[in-house]
Amino acid sequence: MADQSIQEARTPGVPTTRSSSDASGISRRALLGTAGATGLALGAAGGAVGYAAAPASATPLTSVGSGRAMFHGKHQPGITEGLQARGHLVAFDLAPGAGRREAAALLRRWSATAERLMAGEAAGHDDTGVAQDAGPSSLTVTFGFGYGFFGRTGLEKQRPAALDPLPDFSSDRLDKARSDGDLWVQIGADDALVAFHALRALQKDAGSAARVRWQMNGFNRTPGATARPMTARNLMGQLDGTRNPKPADADFDQRIFVPAAGEPAWMANGSYAVVRRIRMLLDDWEQLSLTAQEQVIGRRKADGAPLSGGDETTEMDLDKADAKGDYVVPLNAHARITRPDRNGGAAMLRRPFSYHDGIGADGTPDAGLLFICWQADPLRGFVPVQRKLDRGDALSAYIRHEASGLFAVPGGAAKGEYVGQRLLEG
Amino acid sequence: MADQSIQEARTPGVPTTRSSSDASGISRRALLGTAGATGLALGAAGGAVGYAAAPASATPLTSVGSGRAMFHGKHQPGITEGLQARGHLVAFDLAPGAGRREAAALLRRWSATAERLMAGEAAGHDDTGVAQDAGPSSLTVTFGFGYGFFGRTGLEKQRPAALDPLPDFSSDRLDKARSDGDLWVQIGADDALVAFHALRALQKDAGSAARVRWQMNGFNRTPGATARPMTARNLMGQLDGTRNPKPADADFDQRIFVPAAGEPAWMANGSYAVVRRIRMLLDDWEQLSLTAQEQVIGRRKADGAPLSGGDETTEMDLDKADAKGDYVVPLNAHARITRPDRNGGAAMLRRPFSYHDGIGADGTPDAGLLFICWQADPLRGFVPVQRKLDRGDALSAYIRHEASGLFAVPGGAAKGEYVGQRLLEG
Repeated sequence: MADQSIQEARTPGVPTTRSSSDASGISRRALLGTAGATGLALGAAGGAVGYAAAPASATPLTSVGSGRAMFHGKHQPGITEGLQARGHLVAFDLAPGAGRREAAALLRRWSATAERLMAGEAAGHDDTGVAQDAGPSSLTVTFGFGYGFFGRTGLEKQRPAALDPLPDFSSDRLDKARSDGDLWVQIGADDALVAFHALRALQKDAGSAARVRWQMNGFNRTPGATARPMTARNLMGQLDGTRNPKPADADFDQRIFVPAAGEPAWMANGSYAVVRRIRMLLDDWEQLSLTAQEQVIGRRKADGAPLSGGDETTEMDLDKADAKGDYVVPLNAHARITRPDRNGGAAMLRRPFSYHDGIGADGTPDAGLLFICWQADPLRGFVPVQRKLDRGDALSAYIRHEASGLFAVPGGAAKGEYVGQRLLEG
Repeated sequence: MADQSIQEARTPGVPTTRSSSDASGISRRALLGTAGATGLALGAAGGAVGYAAAPASATPLTSVGSGRAMFHGKHQPGITEGLQARGHLVAFDLAPGAGRREAAALLRRWSATAERLMAGEAAGHDDTGVAQDAGPSSLTVTFGFGYGFFGRTGLEKQRPAALDPLPDFSSDRLDKARSDGDLWVQIGADDALVAFHALRALQKDAGSAARVRWQMNGFNRTPGATARPMTARNLMGQLDGTRNPKPADADFDQRIFVPAAGEPAWMANGSYAVVRRIRMLLDDWEQLSLTAQEQVIGRRKADGAPLSGGDETTEMDLDKADAKGDYVVPLNAHARITRPDRNGGAAMLRRPFSYHDGIGADGTPDAGLLFICWQADPLRGFVPVQRKLDRGDALSAYIRHEASGLFAVPGGAAKGEYVGQRLLEG
């Protein structure tokens, strides 16, 4: 099935075949060749407030619009799917007076909206219409719970130990107002208007139950901008995600997802998301020579190959020395420190967005990475790696962690169920 | 020639055939079908600092990446090309002490960089590498001069009368720090990293000659998100650009561009850009019923058809009344007030980006339209229309003009020439 193949093929940082469009067998050329120059809004469902997904017999969508991820499933969407061109992260706090009942009703509303939007349908009777011409555009919506949620809903006993606050790192410069939150929503889509439309619909669903605590916007490459699918590049110009675990790895599920029989029971097939807003000090970084940048990272900038040789997929030779006896991959190189096999097997699935909010108050670019990583246990994923980076990473002089969040993301909702139901009605 | 056909076919608000990708004759499916799942960075030019555009025999780029606009030409790029998925607007002020000589050197650097980047090449020896895997992705870079530029460079006599400050409008709520500027650069591309890369390269080119005054980010729909090319939709959900003049119109050039024999001579084939950051009061707007929204605009939201009937391209019947004798298109409807034939033939080419910078200081979405319009004479284009809107537009309760700029955009540079050379070396 085409939809399933999207989930399997589009792994963050790993090439994607965008199978859904391939499976349609309809080339972009054939589609566009029939489009006239007169501007009829043929995609719109004239006059109606809502709009339905195009039936199979209607004009087929082109590749970007027709990408569709599934709302229902073992896991929530937005974890193993490929990087999307546009993303919104938004955290909410429950409103004063709102408790478990209001939270349950909100998650029910949110799940219904997410399911509709991910199918390319309108949000409801008061849809804003912003997305109505586009297909689902690989929209995903993912919901998570923060530490504070459990106290406010009387569910302290259900709070996973894995949600205990992250340790302080000496290099952190965290803005509390843009960190944490009772509820977290991750939105991704390959079209900016589709993503914005989902953001507004989900905000409206919050009603009087929850208030926005912080909201961030991000982006990745547009599908088709590169000649072929490849590892994403970040705003420092590095290939980013080369060592990401792959769904085909034997231990992928074990590292990324809470087991079906795991604790607490409501987190079965769920995952923990660590979110870090990592500012890149680009004015400083861009002053470094290419060689200096590559020494900081430990990989070649152009193709991501380790400085010890080979190509992007070659194992890094950490012991290789040059003629003077110095390590070819410096001891404080970012790629050396983050090597999973030097971190007790710690592994996390990184699925970030870049961000760029113009010029910051200090006159430098307010740009960097909305780092999002997924793991079965943050204490075996993000934390040990960040501890090592905090002590001696050459990259740390060029980045600044400015916000942080940790969220418990339950497993996917079964048909007829809403996300978090096993917690809220358990 | 494929590149030329992009410029002709992709008009703002008008369907585009993205001719360059069609002309390649290579389907997305065929390209992606050969991509393995192993993540080789085949697009990268291993190890070199710079990177060349892929030769014709190399792996062809897919449709989005291969789109290319021409730097040299009668007009600057970024005016008649189709809307791009991502945009940056940035204004600079000349640094204290910088004058005509420094400005000329800067425009020479900027033109060289723009030409290289629009061809998919590296910016120079210190390229950041952020765009290196992608094609040009329809990148355009456009340069303009603001009122203050001429005094700082001793070129007051060359300042066009058309650059006289716009009149105050009663509904303006302008932030001076985000308005005006000596120099204006418009960047657009269908890939966010390509656009960001260009922004950084051009900022670096500014060196000590000019400092960023303000910078804004915008977006439009991703190519291929809709089933077929159609008029763009804005964040209020309206089709936006239905009545845009089209290059095929007999008076298009006359309305949009300064004549080849026009005044001042250095503005031959140039145009004037009015830039307005128009905040949309979405929390208020989205409370209106669909019917109320359509009365404000005068068109149906779903398909852009006038309330007097027909489809998007049908002429609006301003005299049509309903059974009670009321005008079907209300007297204060936005589409009635902005009708060119009711504004002394005023016409401007609107080529906007949407923007969304998260939640504003007042708790509402900092989102709306980076309105950019092009005309041969602002006093016959933007000004009379805005005067009428300022007096009685039903839409004005739902929008707020928060920043404004007016820039003289000279004609395109001939080969060997830089943009503005006829002014700076005239």
